[in-house]
Amino acid sequence: WSRAVRGVLLDISGVLYDSGGDGGGTPIAGSAEAVRRIKASGLKLRFCTNETQATREKFVKKLQGLGFDISVAEVTAPAPAACRILKERGLRPHLLVHNDLVPEFAELDKANPNCVVIGDAAENFTYANLNEAFRVLIGMEKPVLISLGRGRYYKETDGLKLDVGAYMKALEYACDVEAEVVGKPAKPFFESALAEMGVPAQQAIMIGDDIVNDVGGAQQCGMRAVQVRTGKYR
Amino acid sequence: WSRAVRGVLLDISGVLYDSGGDGGGTPIAGSAEAVRRIKASGLKLRFCTNETQATREKFVKKLQGLGFDISVAEVTAPAPAACRILKERGLRPHLLVHNDLVPEFAELDKANPNCVVIGDAAENFTYANLNEAFRVLIGMEKPVLISLGRGRYYKETDGLKLDVGAYMKALEYACDVEAEVVGKPAKPFFESALAEMGVPAQQAIMIGDDIVNDVGGAQQCGMRAVQVRTGKYR
Repeated sequence: WSRAVRGVLLDISGVLYDSGGDGGGTPIAGSAEAVRRIKASGLKLRFCTNETQATREKFVKKLQGLGFDISVAEVTAPAPAACRILKERGLRPHLLVHNDLVPEFAELDKANPNCVVIGDAAENFTYANLNEAFRVLIGMEKPVLISLGRGRYYKETDGLKLDVGAYMKALEYACDVEAEVVGKPAKPFFESALAEMGVPAQQAIMIGDDIVNDVGGAQQCGMRAVQVRTGKYR
Repeated sequence: WSRAVRGVLLDISGVLYDSGGDGGGTPIAGSAEAVRRIKASGLKLRFCTNETQATREKFVKKLQGLGFDISVAEVTAPAPAACRILKERGLRPHLLVHNDLVPEFAELDKANPNCVVIGDAAENFTYANLNEAFRVLIGMEKPVLISLGRGRYYKETDGLKLDVGAYMKALEYACDVEAEVVGKPAKPFFESALAEMGVPAQQAIMIGDDIVNDVGGAQQCGMRAVQVRTGKYR
């Protein structure tokens, strides 16, 4: 390295493990050991994920069960970042997210919504739910759509799945509006992960499987980035 | 009119009637009488619809039941136009359409698909079906996506619904591909309606409730167009 690396941001899905549609998953060979070695080396480490199919608590528990040395405090994820934004701006969300993510928004007032928050809702991406989110949006004088990521698709053990970005595009088109993206590749998301780690962008490296969300997003913040050939890499 | 009008193209949904989510619908006051008067006046008339929730046979039967003077031979619709294109190009479709539209594609070979055809699939827009269409597309060396219209949304008696264009955008984004649109506002679609009517664009007028699909599309073909304030007009 031409400059000293002091911190590592690690993507999780497709890098540490391949998730299963059932909420389970399969660790990628060598990844648990890699996490242990990064930590043992004295490098700062932070997990930086767009995962929105579960609360961080539940997600971290699953990873611990798969043998990873990880805690909730080490994870930067879109839902808590979105909550901060909603509070700051006095927004009351209509949620189109996975059932298991709903508790992350427990503190917020959701009556009479003035924005729509979309995450990877998976099985909740029903025709009825999409129409409902659309009607809430189109009924606003100035529709506000907040998207937890803009991924195109991801790989689960039973095959490729459309990610939140595809459904975000559907709502954007129908309402002629542009979503505000929270999560990778948005710059403020990487910046808060760096701040939490206490390492400047120039001394950090991002490791992920997504050329846009992980590599592109990190580089735009002045970080270096590495694309692994696991996960969705094709 | 500065130029003589010899032919009328009439949109159906939102102009003649408001469709119901149950396959029924409610006629718009005065519209059945208007159709009768256009026909009695000696003007050529053709119905030009993006309707893809039923075969033309079934759709026309419903309209006749609502009191309209209409026959299958008077209707220009996307599915038959798409069938012609598929045959010409040797394409075998994977269909993501309404169950009731499937018979329009009966003659085509659907084994080992080399394109995806998307229509207003309504309740068939499930998470599983969208993932399946996505996987078929992303598995092709050069994905071919044919969309029966590009509407954003439409109104049914029980509320606004996302139209095919929104789901088209989702697949376009996920696969980084641009759909080929059959139906309004595509130029060849209006041109075949005009040819069937035997009236040149300069002597025809389009009447619809959609500013992009009806009015914009017709104007791009050199026709005049009128937007009615029924249907989805807001």
